[in-house]
Amino acid sequence: MKSQNLDRRKKALQLLESLESGASARVSQNIDEFHPEALEILLGFAFHDVVSRDGIDLRTREMLTVAMLAAMGTAQSQLEFHMRAALNTGVSPEELVEIVLQVSVYAGIPASMNAMTAAKAAIV
Amino acid sequence: MKSQNLDRRKKALQLLESLESGASARVSQNIDEFHPEALEILLGFAFHDVVSRDGIDLRTREMLTVAMLAAMGTAQSQLEFHMRAALNTGVSPEELVEIVLQVSVYAGIPASMNAMTAAKAAIV
Amino acid sequence: MKSQNLDRRKKALQLLESLESGASARVSQNIDEFHPEALEILLGFAFHDVVSRDGIDLRTREMLTVAMLAAMGTAQSQLEFHMRAALNTGVSPEELVEIVLQVSVYAGIPASMNAMTAAKAAIV
Amino acid sequence: MKSQNLDRRKKALQLLESLESGASARVSQNIDEFHPEALEILLGFAFHDVVSRDGIDLRTREMLTVAMLAAMGTAQSQLEFHMRAALNTGVSPEELVEIVLQVSVYAGIPASMNAMTAAKAAIV
Amino acid sequence: MKSQNLDRRKKALQLLESLESGASARVSQNIDEFHPEALEILLGFAFHDVVSRDGIDLRTREMLTVAMLAAMGTAQSQLEFHMRAALNTGVSPEELVEIVLQVSVYAGIPASMNAMTAAKAAIV
Amino acid sequence: MKSQNLDRRKKALQLLESLESGASARVSQNIDEFHPEALEILLGFAFHDVVSRDGIDLRTREMLTVAMLAAMGTAQSQLEFHMRAALNTGVSPEELVEIVLQVSVYAGIPASMNAMTAAKAAIV
Repeated sequence: MKSQNLDRRKKALQLLESLESGASARVSQNIDEFHPEALEILLGFAFHDVVSRDGIDLRTREMLTVAMLAAMGTAQSQLEFHMRAALNTGVSPEELVEIVLQVSVYAGIPASMNAMTAAKAAIV
Repeated sequence: MKSQNLDRRKKALQLLESLESGASARVSQNIDEFHPEALEILLGFAFHDVVSRDGIDLRTREMLTVAMLAAMGTAQSQLEFHMRAALNTGVSPEELVEIVLQVSVYAGIPASMNAMTAAKAAIV
Repeated sequence: MKSQNLDRRKKALQLLESLESGASARVSQNIDEFHPEALEILLGFAFHDVVSRDGIDLRTREMLTVAMLAAMGTAQSQLEFHMRAALNTGVSPEELVEIVLQVSVYAGIPASMNAMTAAKAAIV
Repeated sequence: MKSQNLDRRKKALQLLESLESGASARVSQNIDEFHPEALEILLGFAFHDVVSRDGIDLRTREMLTVAMLAAMGTAQSQLEFHMRAALNTGVSPEELVEIVLQVSVYAGIPASMNAMTAAKAAIV
Repeated sequence: MKSQNLDRRKKALQLLESLESGASARVSQNIDEFHPEALEILLGFAFHDVVSRDGIDLRTREMLTVAMLAAMGTAQSQLEFHMRAALNTGVSPEELVEIVLQVSVYAGIPASMNAMTAAKAAIV
Repeated sequence: MKSQNLDRRKKALQLLESLESGASARVSQNIDEFHPEALEILLGFAFHDVVSRDGIDLRTREMLTVAMLAAMGTAQSQLEFHMRAALNTGVSPEELVEIVLQVSVYAGIPASMNAMTAAKAAIV
């Protein structure tokens, strides 16, 4: 792997670790056993190229991610992770409550209820 | 209509008007000619019950709404409206750019491109 | 084409025509110029195999179809067609109003607003 | 909480209980431990404002809800609940079969298969 | 059941069995206990009418199916089945890796991660 | 912009141009007027990092892309583009017909009909 790619991988995992302590080891093991380039491609894009950009702080970005995953309703375990990541980056439990309620407006009550389940698991 | 319902309708339209000047007249005409109770039910829920709540400021809520609608990809004209509403409530064009980019991570490049189209129309 | 396939095609188009006068000629021209077997495969399945079954009357089936298409939010022109088909098979405008409102509960306000647009176009 | 809100909460829970005996206690405990106002906001909207309206009977509304949740495919446990609620409000097992089959036309075979799983769990 | 329907059922199950040894017995039991005509309607359409057609070979069709189910994100167990079926019809593990990566472009990183989970379970 | 980023941008546009003559100029103008880094981030990921990879040829990748966009149903104009790109990379009109039919199995008849519209516009 070229040095720029190693750098991209490393920075992506640093961002991931800042979302939840221990996540970088767990996720990198999971993805690396799938394919050695997958982590740099997927998380390099997600965390190195996009989420670590200036312009919006990480705390607000996690609020946006929680809202998107809850509204889409197709990635419950990632939603649970980002509920925890939101708390870890400074989002308050009260703010998670408000996001869960707002999801109901744009994606319906069942999406909101599933987000509530994820939020409760994270807040405990 | 009971007075509490009239109050709910009125407050919902006030919130809507704060998202875009002129929106309350346009939207209320559109919905009222469909059914006289629809506005109070739908926008009373959306704007009186949820979006006007404390806990997250309106500016951040519009960022969340833009992210959700862009990720879902099923309501392009509402996305365009909320891109404008985001700007009207203090979201910067730079922040809209960041949201558009972040959408690509969680919902894919086509969703991001459609959000870009909506953002460009609002920012002009 | 085998006779059983011709029969399937014919019965599918009869069901379609009962949803809206003139629809069988318009839709069959559209699909036949794509591929000569597509109509029998797609509408044979939809209308001959499923929608024409006993167990639920056609009027109620159109209510279900309107609700599904509105909730999914990915086929606005088909939603408009089935709003008209619903009226043609005995669903009242008042019932369409109720379906539009119920969509908001399960799929959110924007899905309901897009269904409202389709319903208004059909009811006029 | 204001009396009108208490009334909204109470009526929402009555509707919920009519969908399945015991549901109001279970669901209210689940939502109340999340936030004391969430139940009135979410279920007040869903059940007091919308689903309890005249114009379509509860039995037909449950058919619509089942169809929508099955077509969306993002809320399997709610789909299972509403399969049971449909039976409890007078929908026959034969009608659930027909809805499951009709889902395949508008949302594809996998959505229909997942609805079949939910229906079988409810019908047993 | 008419002989043409029995033939349709039989051919659908043959196609299914070619996707995974043992699948025809397992799936037919599951569907037949739901309704005696469901298998012929649903799998007759899917496998007899469409997937067994000439024009695209079965191996490529399984690649398309895996891509679609992963992008939609609403049928994880069917995605797992078709990951195995893809391997059984000649798709290589390396090709599954590429499909999983390509899903991220069009449907986002979470959809790709869920497809990765399904692929890993099939490849083992 | 760093040289590696310029290289990523250049290679992404080369891939895009190979999908449709003239597309690189049109798309780069559209995205560059939104934000100067957006093209490298979004299309660098899509086309440089993923779609240009070995393991699956470009012709098959376009088939997968068409299937995914058709099944998701949320990006009709991108679907039209990739229908043309599929033809430009060697997919036959007959193969597009088969993909359109297969979409109906996994995402329903309306998704297939919308894909048919896109295919007909590309095949003309």
